[in-house]
Amino acid sequence: MSSTYGKNLKIAIFGQSHSEAIGVTMDGLPAGFSIDMDELQSFMNRRAPGRDKYSTPRKEADKPDFISGLVGNVTCGAPLTAIIKNTNTRSSDYDNIRDIPRPGHADFTAHVKYGGFEDVSGGGHFSGRLTAPLCIAGGIVKQILAESGITVDAVIKEIGGNSEDPYRAIEKARGRGDSVGGIIECTVNGLPAGIGNPMFDGVENNIAKAVFAIPAVKGIEFGRGFDAGRICGSENNDEFYYEGEQVRTRTNNHGGILGGITSGMPVVFRVAIKPTPSISIQQNSISYSRGEDDILRVRGRHDPCIVPRAVPCVEAACAIALYDLILDI
Amino acid sequence: MSSTYGKNLKIAIFGQSHSEAIGVTMDGLPAGFSIDMDELQSFMNRRAPGRDKYSTPRKEADKPDFISGLVGNVTCGAPLTAIIKNTNTRSSDYDNIRDIPRPGHADFTAHVKYGGFEDVSGGGHFSGRLTAPLCIAGGIVKQILAESGITVDAVIKEIGGNSEDPYRAIEKARGRGDSVGGIIECTVNGLPAGIGNPMFDGVENNIAKAVFAIPAVKGIEFGRGFDAGRICGSENNDEFYYEGEQVRTRTNNHGGILGGITSGMPVVFRVAIKPTPSISIQQNSISYSRGEDDILRVRGRHDPCIVPRAVPCVEAACAIALYDLILDI
Amino acid sequence: MSSTYGKNLKIAIFGQSHSEAIGVTMDGLPAGFSIDMDELQSFMNRRAPGRDKYSTPRKEADKPDFISGLVGNVTCGAPLTAIIKNTNTRSSDYDNIRDIPRPGHADFTAHVKYGGFEDVSGGGHFSGRLTAPLCIAGGIVKQILAESGITVDAVIKEIGGNSEDPYRAIEKARGRGDSVGGIIECTVNGLPAGIGNPMFDGVENNIAKAVFAIPAVKGIEFGRGFDAGRICGSENNDEFYYEGEQVRTRTNNHGGILGGITSGMPVVFRVAIKPTPSISIQQNSISYSRGEDDILRVRGRHDPCIVPRAVPCVEAACAIALYDLILDI
Amino acid sequence: MSSTYGKNLKIAIFGQSHSEAIGVTMDGLPAGFSIDMDELQSFMNRRAPGRDKYSTPRKEADKPDFISGLVGNVTCGAPLTAIIKNTNTRSSDYDNIRDIPRPGHADFTAHVKYGGFEDVSGGGHFSGRLTAPLCIAGGIVKQILAESGITVDAVIKEIGGNSEDPYRAIEKARGRGDSVGGIIECTVNGLPAGIGNPMFDGVENNIAKAVFAIPAVKGIEFGRGFDAGRICGSENNDEFYYEGEQVRTRTNNHGGILGGITSGMPVVFRVAIKPTPSISIQQNSISYSRGEDDILRVRGRHDPCIVPRAVPCVEAACAIALYDLILDI
Repeated sequence: MSSTYGKNLKIAIFGQSHSEAIGVTMDGLPAGFSIDMDELQSFMNRRAPGRDKYSTPRKEADKPDFISGLVGNVTCGAPLTAIIKNTNTRSSDYDNIRDIPRPGHADFTAHVKYGGFEDVSGGGHFSGRLTAPLCIAGGIVKQILAESGITVDAVIKEIGGNSEDPYRAIEKARGRGDSVGGIIECTVNGLPAGIGNPMFDGVENNIAKAVFAIPAVKGIEFGRGFDAGRICGSENNDEFYYEGEQVRTRTNNHGGILGGITSGMPVVFRVAIKPTPSISIQQNSISYSRGEDDILRVRGRHDPCIVPRAVPCVEAACAIALYDLILDI
Repeated sequence: MSSTYGKNLKIAIFGQSHSEAIGVTMDGLPAGFSIDMDELQSFMNRRAPGRDKYSTPRKEADKPDFISGLVGNVTCGAPLTAIIKNTNTRSSDYDNIRDIPRPGHADFTAHVKYGGFEDVSGGGHFSGRLTAPLCIAGGIVKQILAESGITVDAVIKEIGGNSEDPYRAIEKARGRGDSVGGIIECTVNGLPAGIGNPMFDGVENNIAKAVFAIPAVKGIEFGRGFDAGRICGSENNDEFYYEGEQVRTRTNNHGGILGGITSGMPVVFRVAIKPTPSISIQQNSISYSRGEDDILRVRGRHDPCIVPRAVPCVEAACAIALYDLILDI
Repeated sequence: MSSTYGKNLKIAIFGQSHSEAIGVTMDGLPAGFSIDMDELQSFMNRRAPGRDKYSTPRKEADKPDFISGLVGNVTCGAPLTAIIKNTNTRSSDYDNIRDIPRPGHADFTAHVKYGGFEDVSGGGHFSGRLTAPLCIAGGIVKQILAESGITVDAVIKEIGGNSEDPYRAIEKARGRGDSVGGIIECTVNGLPAGIGNPMFDGVENNIAKAVFAIPAVKGIEFGRGFDAGRICGSENNDEFYYEGEQVRTRTNNHGGILGGITSGMPVVFRVAIKPTPSISIQQNSISYSRGEDDILRVRGRHDPCIVPRAVPCVEAACAIALYDLILDI
Repeated sequence: MSSTYGKNLKIAIFGQSHSEAIGVTMDGLPAGFSIDMDELQSFMNRRAPGRDKYSTPRKEADKPDFISGLVGNVTCGAPLTAIIKNTNTRSSDYDNIRDIPRPGHADFTAHVKYGGFEDVSGGGHFSGRLTAPLCIAGGIVKQILAESGITVDAVIKEIGGNSEDPYRAIEKARGRGDSVGGIIECTVNGLPAGIGNPMFDGVENNIAKAVFAIPAVKGIEFGRGFDAGRICGSENNDEFYYEGEQVRTRTNNHGGILGGITSGMPVVFRVAIKPTPSISIQQNSISYSRGEDDILRVRGRHDPCIVPRAVPCVEAACAIALYDLILDI
């Protein structure tokens, strides 16, 4: 188990969906940074459940309580820890998955890894709920980056293959008791050239490592991405030119990264989000106790599509990975 | 700069395209493992240049010299270091890129990061040549995994968009002095369920981090990947069933990984390889010294497509990442 | 700032003396371990203040609240986080040290490092109070080690140079409004041979790294220690012999460690604890605001000797370091 | 096995006493630093064997060959690797220790850890010879530190308990075929205040972790060290005063470190070096093959005292640890 990220800014996430609290410790924040708590809460709210008809009706404030690391709202150099109390949990919803793992969820793999001692309620530590502390950390880091003029913005590109009207795809899936996935694109502006490293510690390596922490992410591509595998060098190469004293490229197929290092062009990547595995439709599964195949009907409250709520999570993971690299210098 | 990977098995890669030698140190190998040197050389040869008409005519044995860590061919517990001497280098080929960065290469970003002190010859530490020590390490790890029945095999899925006849796409690009990219698929069989961790330290996070060390990789997707973002949960969810006492899934859209942890199904992922940036066609670039736009004509020996040579590199990176996770237990 | 320890079991400590709470996250505990909460509390009590006339009158339960990582009292594989609410804090006691740093404390160095944004109340993150979460983590690890028959026991060797009647030395110092230091010896029994690594990652390196986390530790020596620098090889070498099939040494000048690796003999080390810097006696210091020398009179509640309370902290740090190495295998 | 150190500057040491070569990789050096090769060689020579009558007659140039990371003598940002070929090895000297472990050496513990596959020749990876690559790395780092006015200087304080005439103690031990240990003191001048971190990542933690990499080190103490455990707070506390605008302390019992962070006063620590375990005097040991006690007579060339040669090693380890912390900022 390692829910820890980072070399210079260490992020440790803890909690289960139905434990007393979830939270995050950030070790390595600069002292003297004043957190804009309203802005942070607005960022958290983008991820929070129960805000519209497309997301689960479970309503929670997702309001972080800072138990260390601040004097007032200002970082003091000590590790910052923020927690969110878990309330409004209905563990009985999950009684049956103790024996019958949900397809597409981590129930079975957690069961094997933790020998049956895993916390199954609400998906335990594997729950999408754990992206709330990720967003606390990412929201704070985004504020720090913004001070240097660096912005991290993600948007929905398509849902269920529909890039014109993503929400219609969600509506249709919901009507069928089904769910649907999508693709998110994230753009980082304002990054100077020279951030990152070659080989194992480049910008792509680290953003990928951080972004795959979001449950449901199944792919990532930078710049032209998979499409680059289908074209010629003469088309894919981005030619350099001077804009005043600034070196730029005329196209950005490289997604702002060459040799693991930022070029000064916007960093651009896309992330594939699989459909929420929890669906109302009956599914085939197994029963551990009876050692035979069984049928599962998932109860509880679930999003027909978590793509909209994943958008700030992608920003958070990206911001954390980039800031850790920036601190290298 | 961090050309180091791993927690339990630490891999440190060093060297530049035209330095005296390139090599790798592996710290954390089990003592008593007998390396099959012929098999390792065969694996190295799959990556080596100059083997067929599609790859650069630069011929090098790529024969590792083990300067520590072995007694005979058997690991002794001490860090293993293998080097490959650089020969047959023609540094003068690279004189012009000291001033005019090649589009699509790391010349410019390295220049910014290392303040003009970077080794430009042959791309320095950013050269594809550095995948040779990656393959030494990966080739050894593949042998260790094979002892437990775990196999890592990558194949070309498509080149230049052509999945029927990839080599024809290379031929055409070469004829135009151009280059072409492709997509590689890697499959790991024999992995037990329960390998990997949730959040930041899962199988996807770590394979991605390792695979992006290969220059030219611009995307990675696991299982159904980006396509999963376009379908419904009822289609994407993989239903569990018992095959004897073994839990399996009827489909493998999850690519063998749920919640960052292996399910016992094959781990499957695809990697996007961009076209070789070095092309004979004249390109627009800049001149640092004159501070204005300039024209670049790349000389030297280059592959019209490095996808075939990247196949063993993908296997190597994947094997290294997985073995490091297996050692967690 | 890095209050994080460990490779396999990651310990992250957070909190300031007067923040809302202090606590610890443990990432990497085995799933299925049942914590004996009474035993843990007994261990915590050995460190807790206000238990006898020699320690500060500040009374606190130091009762950990487990907010994640457990189902009942049993670890579930997810990161375990325990917090202790800070109560009974009198921040006004520390008003003057905001401007006048206390000799022997971290007030001045924290002031430089954190640019005046440090939390000065009660010493902030540098307070000895932060050894409470260290003891939560260490107490749990001690229970895990005990299951394998490994015991970690520290005792006071001397206080104020007095090894016959340490408490008399404390009494005398207290009478003068002064404080006094001491030496603690820790012995680990039951460790198998073969734990640890050569060079940078040996048993000595790691125990030392962990033990210096305890404020006031100024030295550590293993086995014969500094005395070994004063004798001959023929006296210092520990001869091997067989006791049945077990290899043992007739003496234990090596303190159970050779080449960074355990020999199967008890691991023995001693730690030097400096006298509590907080004394009632008036001291010379400086005033930041006035930029000149000043006089400090420390108010507040302080131990005349923290050596007795440091004993379980040494056990905790040692247990954490050893267990992390044991998990290597 | 982990012969790797550092977070920002990663040092990986490899090689065995009688392998083809020993060496070190340094990943994270600044680009553009010009190494003074003569100065480095002078530093290496302080550690090299065979220079005077007190050290082993095995003569070796210990001349590093830089196989990567440099363009000319200037760092290029890529990982720097330097190797030293092993010559003048007489492996037959070590034939008997394959079965009979030498008291005080790592022969037995390595045998247990590596299951009999360890390289016994010359002590393998545990040999004091591996401090040569440590000195390559440390010598380079010392040059970098010197550019910022930071000096690291170690001296012999006593040998065999003799602080007046250390070399006389060596002479006497040599005459008896015995060996003798000693104490080295290291002083770092020019360090600014504010380097280091609280708890696990302070200056003491890291210097200790690095210094215990030197075989034969059995203890370390900072400032007043163990003596601080024997005195009162009023004596041990170092009072602050202004010297112009500079904050200083009148005494330096804290050894330049408070709360893990430098105070701007010299960092001072002492290290205990045990007597060389290799002595000509016959010793009791065991025979693995016969499973019973046996008698050992060590042949080969050995130093009666390695303290003089350990002096630059202490400087090297200290410089590496400090520089890694300085890069944190």
